[in-house]
Amino acid sequence: MNYGVFVPGASPDGHATPRVGVQWNDAVVDLGLLGLDAPPGLFDGPSLNPFMAAGPDVWAAVAEQLADPAADLERAATPVERANLLLPIEVADYVDFYASIDHATNVGLLFRPDQPLMPNWRHLPVGYHGRAGTVVVSGTPVRRPHGQRLDAHGTVVFGPSTRLDFELEVGFVVGVPSGQGAPVPVEGAASHVFGVVLLNDWSARDIQAWEYQPLGPFLGKSFATSVSAWVTPLADLEGARIAPPAQSPEPLPYLQTDQPWGLDLDLTVERNGEQVSACPFAPMYWTLAQFVAHLTVNGASLRTGDLLGSGTVSGPEPGQRGCLLEMGGPFLADGDEVVLRGQAVNGVALGEVRGVVV
Amino acid sequence: MNYGVFVPGASPDGHATPRVGVQWNDAVVDLGLLGLDAPPGLFDGPSLNPFMAAGPDVWAAVAEQLADPAADLERAATPVERANLLLPIEVADYVDFYASIDHATNVGLLFRPDQPLMPNWRHLPVGYHGRAGTVVVSGTPVRRPHGQRLDAHGTVVFGPSTRLDFELEVGFVVGVPSGQGAPVPVEGAASHVFGVVLLNDWSARDIQAWEYQPLGPFLGKSFATSVSAWVTPLADLEGARIAPPAQSPEPLPYLQTDQPWGLDLDLTVERNGEQVSACPFAPMYWTLAQFVAHLTVNGASLRTGDLLGSGTVSGPEPGQRGCLLEMGGPFLADGDEVVLRGQAVNGVALGEVRGVVV
Repeated sequence: MNYGVFVPGASPDGHATPRVGVQWNDAVVDLGLLGLDAPPGLFDGPSLNPFMAAGPDVWAAVAEQLADPAADLERAATPVERANLLLPIEVADYVDFYASIDHATNVGLLFRPDQPLMPNWRHLPVGYHGRAGTVVVSGTPVRRPHGQRLDAHGTVVFGPSTRLDFELEVGFVVGVPSGQGAPVPVEGAASHVFGVVLLNDWSARDIQAWEYQPLGPFLGKSFATSVSAWVTPLADLEGARIAPPAQSPEPLPYLQTDQPWGLDLDLTVERNGEQVSACPFAPMYWTLAQFVAHLTVNGASLRTGDLLGSGTVSGPEPGQRGCLLEMGGPFLADGDEVVLRGQAVNGVALGEVRGVVV
Repeated sequence: MNYGVFVPGASPDGHATPRVGVQWNDAVVDLGLLGLDAPPGLFDGPSLNPFMAAGPDVWAAVAEQLADPAADLERAATPVERANLLLPIEVADYVDFYASIDHATNVGLLFRPDQPLMPNWRHLPVGYHGRAGTVVVSGTPVRRPHGQRLDAHGTVVFGPSTRLDFELEVGFVVGVPSGQGAPVPVEGAASHVFGVVLLNDWSARDIQAWEYQPLGPFLGKSFATSVSAWVTPLADLEGARIAPPAQSPEPLPYLQTDQPWGLDLDLTVERNGEQVSACPFAPMYWTLAQFVAHLTVNGASLRTGDLLGSGTVSGPEPGQRGCLLEMGGPFLADGDEVVLRGQAVNGVALGEVRGVVV
């Protein structure tokens, strides 16, 4: 079942305090009202972090109790239209990877036709840190950012971005922390990662193109990153795990695993009510297990609430582009609404991400 | 006076709870024991964040009371050798700038002799996000990171970094948050920034060189970033403010100010007891006021605990290089100790940053 944080009632500014809940039919079930057998303090809000930090045994025990008809979820249910869903996690560090070989190739072709993939791309999951403080929940309006860009004559100008884009991504949320100086092995992801969100990494392509050399994207991305209100436990996606694409060259040993860490998810992008893209997650070149192993191999720690974005999800076909930069535009206009949706092959629906440009 | 967080007694793992204190002669004064006229809850630890969030009026009122002899600091003083100094702030987002024109030119010459400064460098303060979760307090040993690098034959190999470096930086700590979508004007820095730390942005140059294209530094930096245990209030550096270097071309209006936002600080690097560099902060091209205005101009918010690094501080002379990459090595060996110190022209001493490579 999908987990989230909500305030019962009409307004998130109301008096009610945030509660942890699960998505059940068209309702939110308040976990604090069920009398579950679980350590104290996990469901009092205002984020999933305490529950996520409790670890896989607690996650499994709670899931088992919720699946038992005796739990009687009805008695703790609020219709979803009467609940305000809040940002479900307190984000610690936000890391964004670049794991789709189709996306990296398509974008690379725009800038380096002779060498679309950098020499490092097939050796390691390229990633960078984004801004944790501007991660917002689905439904939050997104202001068009202002910034510096080059105009058509190569002159530096300032103003609203004229190339505002979305990026369809899957985000992975860390529950159990790891120690500084103690790398997590490639098989350790399931011991640390609680679940999955959909993520829209809004991008101002004109700001980004001018600023990003040599230290990477900054203001072109940091104005807003939207995530779904619902976090789907990784355990619920067991039935969607598949072998990822073959990797060539063979990665270094710390990135090697025989386990099927690919995920068979179907993702879609809707713009103003019309589907503009349908992107399979299955062809993603680098996997969650490799993200975690790589991120920590230098001794960096994980914290509860770390958010690991997959990077834009694009597939090999023309209708499978996860951002407008790859689709050739047109870029977003004020008032445009973008909705990301996802469904796993085993029937589990991920939470949607919705945002309007203002 | 410098502010920090400490645990009285011999061990940070002891039973005593962290307390907010100030540096006074060779002692730490427990602010919670002084009965200061201040809002409740500011000095109970475990970080300066509640005090920093309280804003400039509270900062000034507390400083005024501490300067009054009637405060009788002696009664709340613990000798510094009997106090364990902890990480003083809970880091929200960590942003690292690249604001020294001498550093950017020196490093640029190594990679792009024909164009050491990128075209954007004089138009905006280049910056990127680092890893907040691996910021550690002075005195914490720093493990040599493992990772991928290219060997002398251009082959990808894995192992301990062979080019481990320090970076001498000044860090600015945000106290008062700002709203998403509400840029802070260039004169707003003093309303938001509480104080200053020294910062060592440890860097594995071999890992960084291989990974950083096209999204910027990642594992080459994320294994550890050390900050001083003491935070010096910006207000204490009023007497060290000077005009920064002239900027050409003239920056865009949102980055323009007539106020003297340069800081006249003398910084030093000591390696194994020997001073290897003496770097003036005064020639830094971009200022704190410009960092804050740029960082937020796209609508990004500030949070209490945001840490803004200046980037490596280098001056124009050969003895003024803030990292080994610029000095031509030799890179750090296991057991090497690096100590950063700083002194403002008005006599205020910044907290030192000390770290041993293990």
